[in-house]
Amino acid sequence: MNLFSERVEAVRRIMRRQGWDAVILTGTDPHSSEYSAPRWHPVGWVTGYTGEGDLVITLDHAGVWTDTRYFIQAERELHGSGVELHKTRVPEQILIPEWLPGHFSSFENVVVALDGQSQSVSSVLDIRNAFLAQGFEENGKGSRAFTIANASNFLDEIWLDRPPVPQTPVITLGTEQVGWSRKQKIDWLRKWMQERGHDALLLTALDQIAWMLNVRGQDVQYNPVVISYLLMTLDSVQWFVRKGPIPAEDSETEDSFYELTADGVNIQDYDEVKSALVGMVRDDEVSRLFLDSASLNYDLYRALSDHASHAELELGKSPVILRKAVKNEVEIAGMREAHFEDGVAMEKFLYWLEMSVRNGDAVNEYEAARKIHALRAEIPGFRGESFETISAYGPNAALPHYVTPVEGSAELYPKGLYLCDSGGQYLFGTTDITRTIPLGPCTPLEKEDYTLVLKGHIGLAKTVFPKGTACCRIDALARVPLWNSMRDFGHGTGHGVGFYLNVHEGPQGLRQDLNHQPLMPGMTTTNEPGIYREGQHGVRHENVYLTVDAGRNDFGSWLRSEPLTLCHFDTGILVPDLLDRDEINWLNQYNARVFETLAPHLPAEVADWLRDKTRPVG
Amino acid sequence: MNLFSERVEAVRRIMRRQGWDAVILTGTDPHSSEYSAPRWHPVGWVTGYTGEGDLVITLDHAGVWTDTRYFIQAERELHGSGVELHKTRVPEQILIPEWLPGHFSSFENVVVALDGQSQSVSSVLDIRNAFLAQGFEENGKGSRAFTIANASNFLDEIWLDRPPVPQTPVITLGTEQVGWSRKQKIDWLRKWMQERGHDALLLTALDQIAWMLNVRGQDVQYNPVVISYLLMTLDSVQWFVRKGPIPAEDSETEDSFYELTADGVNIQDYDEVKSALVGMVRDDEVSRLFLDSASLNYDLYRALSDHASHAELELGKSPVILRKAVKNEVEIAGMREAHFEDGVAMEKFLYWLEMSVRNGDAVNEYEAARKIHALRAEIPGFRGESFETISAYGPNAALPHYVTPVEGSAELYPKGLYLCDSGGQYLFGTTDITRTIPLGPCTPLEKEDYTLVLKGHIGLAKTVFPKGTACCRIDALARVPLWNSMRDFGHGTGHGVGFYLNVHEGPQGLRQDLNHQPLMPGMTTTNEPGIYREGQHGVRHENVYLTVDAGRNDFGSWLRSEPLTLCHFDTGILVPDLLDRDEINWLNQYNARVFETLAPHLPAEVADWLRDKTRPVG
Repeated sequence: MNLFSERVEAVRRIMRRQGWDAVILTGTDPHSSEYSAPRWHPVGWVTGYTGEGDLVITLDHAGVWTDTRYFIQAERELHGSGVELHKTRVPEQILIPEWLPGHFSSFENVVVALDGQSQSVSSVLDIRNAFLAQGFEENGKGSRAFTIANASNFLDEIWLDRPPVPQTPVITLGTEQVGWSRKQKIDWLRKWMQERGHDALLLTALDQIAWMLNVRGQDVQYNPVVISYLLMTLDSVQWFVRKGPIPAEDSETEDSFYELTADGVNIQDYDEVKSALVGMVRDDEVSRLFLDSASLNYDLYRALSDHASHAELELGKSPVILRKAVKNEVEIAGMREAHFEDGVAMEKFLYWLEMSVRNGDAVNEYEAARKIHALRAEIPGFRGESFETISAYGPNAALPHYVTPVEGSAELYPKGLYLCDSGGQYLFGTTDITRTIPLGPCTPLEKEDYTLVLKGHIGLAKTVFPKGTACCRIDALARVPLWNSMRDFGHGTGHGVGFYLNVHEGPQGLRQDLNHQPLMPGMTTTNEPGIYREGQHGVRHENVYLTVDAGRNDFGSWLRSEPLTLCHFDTGILVPDLLDRDEINWLNQYNARVFETLAPHLPAEVADWLRDKTRPVG
Repeated sequence: MNLFSERVEAVRRIMRRQGWDAVILTGTDPHSSEYSAPRWHPVGWVTGYTGEGDLVITLDHAGVWTDTRYFIQAERELHGSGVELHKTRVPEQILIPEWLPGHFSSFENVVVALDGQSQSVSSVLDIRNAFLAQGFEENGKGSRAFTIANASNFLDEIWLDRPPVPQTPVITLGTEQVGWSRKQKIDWLRKWMQERGHDALLLTALDQIAWMLNVRGQDVQYNPVVISYLLMTLDSVQWFVRKGPIPAEDSETEDSFYELTADGVNIQDYDEVKSALVGMVRDDEVSRLFLDSASLNYDLYRALSDHASHAELELGKSPVILRKAVKNEVEIAGMREAHFEDGVAMEKFLYWLEMSVRNGDAVNEYEAARKIHALRAEIPGFRGESFETISAYGPNAALPHYVTPVEGSAELYPKGLYLCDSGGQYLFGTTDITRTIPLGPCTPLEKEDYTLVLKGHIGLAKTVFPKGTACCRIDALARVPLWNSMRDFGHGTGHGVGFYLNVHEGPQGLRQDLNHQPLMPGMTTTNEPGIYREGQHGVRHENVYLTVDAGRNDFGSWLRSEPLTLCHFDTGILVPDLLDRDEINWLNQYNARVFETLAPHLPAEVADWLRDKTRPVG
């Protein structure tokens, strides 16, 4: 028995005492965040597996469900724990909702316990519906019955060193930074509520709350959010955020809370949200409460459903998602500034990289990641990376989600391709950029892949398209040059980027899925096609683009994409014959603009080098 | 009062007698066919308007709802009838379901009568839901109540010369023509039913029935279908088709019915379907009856719902739709043959057209349409056009659905663009082709539009794409070359084509709508981008393509499009600079293949001319 198999047994002792047949643990926080703080990483604590995935423990089985990206890591980390790997995103996958009723098919009464705070409403409904579809009766007494037990924080009795809810300094942003004051935003949302007949609305997604109140924190790594809930009625705003006394040294939070209170925002304790909501719906203080279906957790949903007497609960799509995605003029100006500063850092980095490798200085992937970090950190207003830097050389770049190890990362040599996917959080914007750099001689296949991915990137970047075009209709424009030589990539082509907020945001998204949201003027979205060849190399070219109006004519209204990212595309290994005239022109104009904009702000030797790098091709 | 306003008044007399507040009339037949026989054109009989559209008559209003394509025609034909035009597919449109409760907002009890045979289930539910959304109660006695009265054929008491249900000769196709015998198809469908637990299934869509039984008729113009219903149980097949005694001269039908009976198909009277179904569900002869939600009419649906005691009615997507769309090897061979013969006719036509115009012979649009008809009619196995030929010169071609008038159609002159969209029905396949032909000097804009539409056509035609790609993800590939110069077209990019069946069929379709059906090997689909400039010209280039396997590699499984249509694209006014090398190569190879395949079968002077027409460009 190793540490982790002992922890699994400790969970089973709780299960036996409580009469549970299965427990489910996830990495989701109570706000359905894409990334969560360590407090919500119970799977790693129990099993030793530190990647993404969900854990199911029964009295005779324990398994982690995770996808292709994590198979190798999971098998290594789970070794000796007795916990088995269940593979997802493979044709033969059996997901948890389907697995559970199958496993308990001969049981008379099944009790499945889960942490309702760490489950979205829809994920619990999936489990419930799977049992019903297998002929089980819910809360029944018959021959086949099942019960879903909401057991929030049940692990705490054995997870003694569980991290607390994060509490980092809270800062506020002024209208000169974000354009819209929080009062304007509150008025706008109240108007939306009134038009729909809602007298209360609960925001549960952290980036929506940060946007509404013009606040930022560092509660989740890379994501400048504040873990909290926001409850609005037609005459009050309550922010459930306080996790204890404000430390004496945290004057930022104190100032922020003061400013918010002056604006009519009532500061409440984070832990009080449930009782406040329950009291409100039980005592008929509201008649129609709007809830964000995408981020409400099951625990709150159950509490509200169980206690609402006359109040109607309406789950729907929060209007903040789209409003936040469409940046205003001030936010756009900030994003331009962020990408300009970020571009200066990137060009200094690429110059340093080329010189180091050419001079034979020993540089490894991790040191390269440290270097771009250091260059970004020099920028006033830098607040950290927007995600974990992917610094990957050669075959490592064939893993789209490669994690660069601190110890023993690969040395860079003057040959083949190096891929760096990184981004910064600044007080005035968020960046996300990938460049693939030839460090020396490359194979014909590397050159061809490099060029075809760039052709795909340019194909999408230069397209003018009708206003109202659904995202899913244009994703293929970045893929066609790859498809035509029977190549493709398994990830999305682009995602929304927040304004000094999460680097992944919706509602737009260029993906294989049928997302019907159109790109709209003011949206900021990545364009990042790639090619990945296991054991050989990986290529990805990523910029952030601003969607802008392109005018009107007899055929309709038109939109186009304006590059925000400012960093040249290397043309050294380009195969110009694979690009057409329009694509060559786009590339030359882009590189020329990068040089003109950045050169005056670069050290002379970097500017000279960049002039050479951005000479027109073709 | 003209004839039509008198007919509207006659309808109102029926309404007063029956206590109806509104009646709705449509052009839909009891099988939800896209095109219907004249029996189901009541809107034209009542109002004089002969285009597509629906009619609503109340005691104080009469209106026809139709879309942009028919505005001019509707205004002309409705003049003097007192019937108003309600415009659809415009931003300010108010559709019938929304209009009705608005019009009757101050009424206490509204009775809306409709011909349930000429309404799909979903169209009636739309009306019902619109009333409910406006606070009306169904069949209620309260202050705001509405009733939907199913009044099939209520017009018959005044429409004395209403055409009967069509009855044309029925022929059968053998396995050497269609690959799969009707016994194989019946076995396949029974297996599908058994797997789903259905003991009965009703087919209501005419092309599905024709496919199932390997029969064809001419009951609907251009669509070789037989108006009928097909009811299958696990041990019987009943075809409700007979509309009276078979005329003595119709030995084809007699032979067909004999053959079908020998195969176990029970021939029944068309009019008996409702009583047969009602009896079956009332007497519990079936327990689970499957119905095709897309084509079942409201009248049958109501009868079944009202009388079913224990039988479950399941509305869903008929499996025949997809099975029929994926052609087998025999059907594919037939489609190839049809497109070869059709291509010979098309090249003779285009040669004749060029010579006639060059020689100054007077030719008008209608005569050109007659010519291509005559050339197709020479082909053994020709069964008529697959749709009404669009023969349009100059500005007329800017109307995508132009109807060439028999009298007074435009003369063709040796300049500008002539567009011909036509197709044939053959015993061995169905064709659909559009060519846009420069008759002499063209403007720079005509040349550019011609080239960009061809670039879009080629862009889609030459794309290799991953198996499983949803149709809506690749529609844009034909549009991007147009989008990039801010041009577009308002119709779909492509539709499925039947095998000696309807020229429009699903489930695939390249359109703006988010159709998630992927193209599959064996599907036959058009590719027909266009540009339309009101008062100037129209361009459309259309071929039919067969989807075929393109192999497998590390990146997945791949599909490509193989042209079935064989007819050269004119390169006389091509602007080669607008095409890239791959596009030029595709065009040259296509034209070369057309020449090599067709020339041996063309008269010497046409073959010589075609050699010249298909010389490589670029």
